[in-house]
Order: sequence, then C-alpha cells, then structure tokens
Amino acid sequence: MSELRLGPGPEFDRIRAIAAALGDRASGLGGDVAYLEVGGRHLALSTDLSVEGVHFRRDWLGFEEIGWRAASAALSDLAAAGAQPIGVLAALTVPAREGTGTFTALMDGVAAAAGAVHGVVLGGDLSRGGAIALAITVAGIAERKLERRGARPGDGVWVTGELGGAGAALAAWTAGRPPDPAARARFARPEPRIAAGAWLAAHGATAMMDLSDGLAGDAEHLAAASAVHLHIGLERLPVHPAVPAEARAAGEPPQLFAARAGEDYELLVALPPGFPGGAGFPLARIGEVEDGRGVRFELDGRAHALAGFDHFA
Amino acid sequence: MSELRLGPGPEFDRIRAIAAALGDRASGLGGDVAYLEVGGRHLALSTDLSVEGVHFRRDWLGFEEIGWRAASAALSDLAAAGAQPIGVLAALTVPAREGTGTFTALMDGVAAAAGAVHGVVLGGDLSRGGAIALAITVAGIAERKLERRGARPGDGVWVTGELGGAGAALAAWTAGRPPDPAARARFARPEPRIAAGAWLAAHGATAMMDLSDGLAGDAEHLAAASAVHLHIGLERLPVHPAVPAEARAAGEPPQLFAARAGEDYELLVALPPGFPGGAGFPLARIGEVEDGRGVRFELDGRAHALAGFDHFA
Repeated sequence: MSELRLGPGPEFDRIRAIAAALGDRASGLGGDVAYLEVGGRHLALSTDLSVEGVHFRRDWLGFEEIGWRAASAALSDLAAAGAQPIGVLAALTVPAREGTGTFTALMDGVAAAAGAVHGVVLGGDLSRGGAIALAITVAGIAERKLERRGARPGDGVWVTGELGGAGAALAAWTAGRPPDPAARARFARPEPRIAAGAWLAAHGATAMMDLSDGLAGDAEHLAAASAVHLHIGLERLPVHPAVPAEARAAGEPPQLFAARAGEDYELLVALPPGFPGGAGFPLARIGEVEDGRGVRFELDGRAHALAGFDHFA
Repeated sequence: MSELRLGPGPEFDRIRAIAAALGDRASGLGGDVAYLEVGGRHLALSTDLSVEGVHFRRDWLGFEEIGWRAASAALSDLAAAGAQPIGVLAALTVPAREGTGTFTALMDGVAAAAGAVHGVVLGGDLSRGGAIALAITVAGIAERKLERRGARPGDGVWVTGELGGAGAALAAWTAGRPPDPAARARFARPEPRIAAGAWLAAHGATAMMDLSDGLAGDAEHLAAASAVHLHIGLERLPVHPAVPAEARAAGEPPQLFAARAGEDYELLVALPPGFPGGAGFPLARIGEVEDGRGVRFELDGRAHALAGFDHFA
C-alpha cells in the first residue's frame, strides 16, 4: 500500500506493520470498505470479526443477539460507504460442546440483521473452535465511492444519532451492574445507519466513517485519512440518556465519556459548508474541518486529550 | 431456501438445519459460491474458515503456510465456479500472546496465495482470540454461472490432478511420522485450480465443485445437487505417488484411500458426452452420470461404500 493513513494506537500500529509487509499486494487495508468496479457499478465489500471474550461476552448477550450484533457491526461499514446492502456471508466458529441450535440461533440473528436492511445471507462456513467467533463479510452497492479521505477545510463535522449508549452498557457490565435497558439495546441490537449513510452520500458528504472504536479514536482516523485538522466541540455531542449516570460513576463529564465510548455504530461525516440540513434523522454538527493535522477536542473551550478504544488491548 | 441438496453426513445435517431455520432469508448456503449479478457481470463470493486444531495444527505448518493454505482453500471455491479471482478479505484471530509478526506472516501467506492467481488482499480484520483462525472471503468474476447442479445423464465424471496427497500427509502426521515431502507440499501449499476451472467452464462443464472434503463425500454432494446418479470406477482414479505407502499402512487399496482423503482442492466436473479432451492440464475420466440418485463407487467391478471426511467430527 502506498499510503495507510490511520490515527494513533497499538491496534493501528499492527495494521500499519502488516500493510507495510504486504506492500502493493494489499489494496484495501485501513478503510471501511474495499470498492470493486464491477460492470460499471461500485461494489463495496468489508469483513468484520466478532469474537467472544473480545467483542462480547456470552453472559451479556443471547446467541441471536450475538449474531445480530456481529452482522450489524459489519453492515455499518456499508452505511459508512453510503452503500445499499446486497447480503452477508457468515463464517461461524462455535465450541464443540455446543449443539446445532447455537449455530442456528447465531445465524438467525445474522439473517435478521441483514433482513432489517433488505439484505440476505449469501453464504457461509461453519467450524468448531475454542470460542464463538463470527467473521461477517458484507457486500453492497454504492452510488459513488465515499471514503474517509475527502474532508476539506471549511467542511462541517457531523454525527448521526446519540453517542455513548453502548459504552454505558459496557461500563455497567464491567462494574458488575445490570445496564440500563436502553443502553443494553444499543449494545445488543445496534442498527447500521444504512438509510442515513445513503442520504448523506447523496447530499454532498465529503468523507464518512462509522463510529466503531469511539469518536475519540475514529476522528483521528478521519483526520489522518483526509490529511486535515478537526476541531470538535464536545459540548455539542448528542449524548445517550444512559450516559450521565455512568459518566458520574466514572467521575467524568458525560461528553468525555460519550466521546471515548465505542460500539455506537453511528456515522461521523464531513459535509460541505453550504450543507442545508433537512435530514430526516438525528444529525448534529459537532465541529469543523481545518487546515493542519490531528484532532483538537474541546469541552466548553477547554482542550482534552482523549484516548480511543482498543479492541486489542 | 426452497432446496438444499447436499449429500449425507453430520456436517451437512447441520447446514440443512440452519438453512431450514433461515428459510428464504438465506439464498446461498450449500454451494461453493454465491453469485451476485452486478452490472451484468456474474460476481462470485465465498467464505471459508481455517481453524487451528480443526483444519490444521501449528506443529505441522509455518504461519506463512497456514495463511497460504487458508487462502488457497477459499480461492478453490472460485476455481470450482470457473471464476477469475479479484481478491480476498482476510479476518484473522490470533492468541494474545502472539506478536505482530504472527499476523504479518499469516497475511503474507494469504497475499502470496492470492497473488499466485492474480488476486490482491482487498481488506480484512484482526482480533485476538483463543486460537489461530482465518476466515477468508474471496471475490471473483465468472463468465457464466456454473454450479454443482447441472450434471446430466450421459455426461462423463472427471477429476483434475492427483488425489490423496494431502490425505497421505495427514495420515503420516496423525501416526507421528514425518510426511513424504511431496505429500506435505500438497497439504501445506495447495494450488487452487483457477486456470483449469476457467478452461472447463469454457469447454462445456455442466456441473463442477472442488474436492475439499474428499471424493467420497463430494461426489455425493454433486449427485444430490444435480439429482443424478454417479457411477465411479475407482481403478481410474489418478492417485498421488505418496498414497500407496500410506494406504498400505492403513491396510486398504490406494484408490480407496485417495477417494476418502480430503483437502486435495482438485476439481470434480461433469462434462458432456462429446467432450473432446485437449485440456492442457491433468484431467481424468473416472465415471459416468446416470439416471437415478446417489453414487456407486466400484473398484475393479466391486462396489464399495465410502464415508466422506467430516471437519466437524
């Protein structure tokens, strides 16, 4: 790869090392989707892993939820590309002690998540293995190639939905408390923002990505990919209603909690200065694209250094 | 799915149960590839798992070989569709104690296998996990839709290459002996028969699949998918040179050993009666397609019941 522009973090150091070793043989590492030009159409492909003990715990979720969540996380990459899903391929490993019912429940969740955005299960593979793991590959069609790299100084920085809900559920589980039901639903049954992504792509989005690792880290990736500076006012962040209680327990402002929290699968998007608004879904302007590099996070005018969320840590 | 025509075996009972639960939401289970019509082209997609302790053992193979083998096994599904590879997506899980070098070596093998058939690494995902596992998704373009289901009475049944080499290596490892080097190479560095698959698709193949589970089981799948009977003369089987020694150790004729052995990634293909030959690669006629159902395996005129190879057992 000639360039791999990601933000800081050990997970991304690993991807950089692999990309450097592969050189020109790897064309698509580091982005949300790979685009293939097939018969004049833009086909978007992406693969996403969900591994027990890393991305979820079995005592948190039912099998159908595990399948839904894995597929929705993968479909979210299509949303980030403004693409319409065609379908998913699901490679499932499950411990030998589990019966066929576990595979069926996992696949039922995968199929339900795909069906909710008008996709089907195109294929898959099954294996036993030490833990439950799902590798979900998604295929969709985009009207144009929309990536992380097109943000320009003067654009606005926007997010869909509310942030921090899934993180609030995770914080509660980690502390041994039952999560707020709405927060739990955000973690267990995320909804890929397919319709919002397509609308934003059709309304001038210059760069877009999904918030899987949390705004703190993902904004760094968008800034690095676009070779710009982002100035983000965290007081403008739409915060999930379950966040304040968990932020209080963590001893930090809700906006910082929400910016660090991962797994929301909302969209982070740069829109041109003349963007008129009028989206039929929650969309909030949280900052500006400027000349320079990196990200400045401010809360009520005060700068904050934020570390992103590392699945690998 | 309205029909899922697979041969017998517990692995396939599992796929049948899942397909039954999913109904119309799963369109592509049970075949080698899923075909998508994109811009008037036939895009072929497939996902294939390689899991440590199930599909390979770490003391048998180096990391680069593990990556090569996983990618080649997946690419073999494109060969079975007569498709030309575009590229692969690789989802890798690796235990936390392994360093970045393990990911890089695995991906280097994946990229080498893709590059050997003019494909690239389009994308991927990384996670830690309990064991090494690779979920490889392949994308390719086929000139026409070629599946397991088109064989007609009167067609000939053919195989590419030589069978049983990978199985001979497995038998040696399992018995605690070092495998024959040529047999080891067949297991460690299988070559997807991309060129052969494309040639056969262009020369009238009516049904095709790759031999991943072994001729004994895979012939049952082809017969079931095509709703025909296959009559196979095992004395006509091209047997890998390492097979006779292992077959002797197993106390059975080399042809039966080779028919039961999995992981060869050769092609099983039905060709019409007038097929003139002239392939520039090893291609042997081993039987005939007849009216009826199921498979009759004979060796020198005597029938043999053969059980296929079950990754799940």
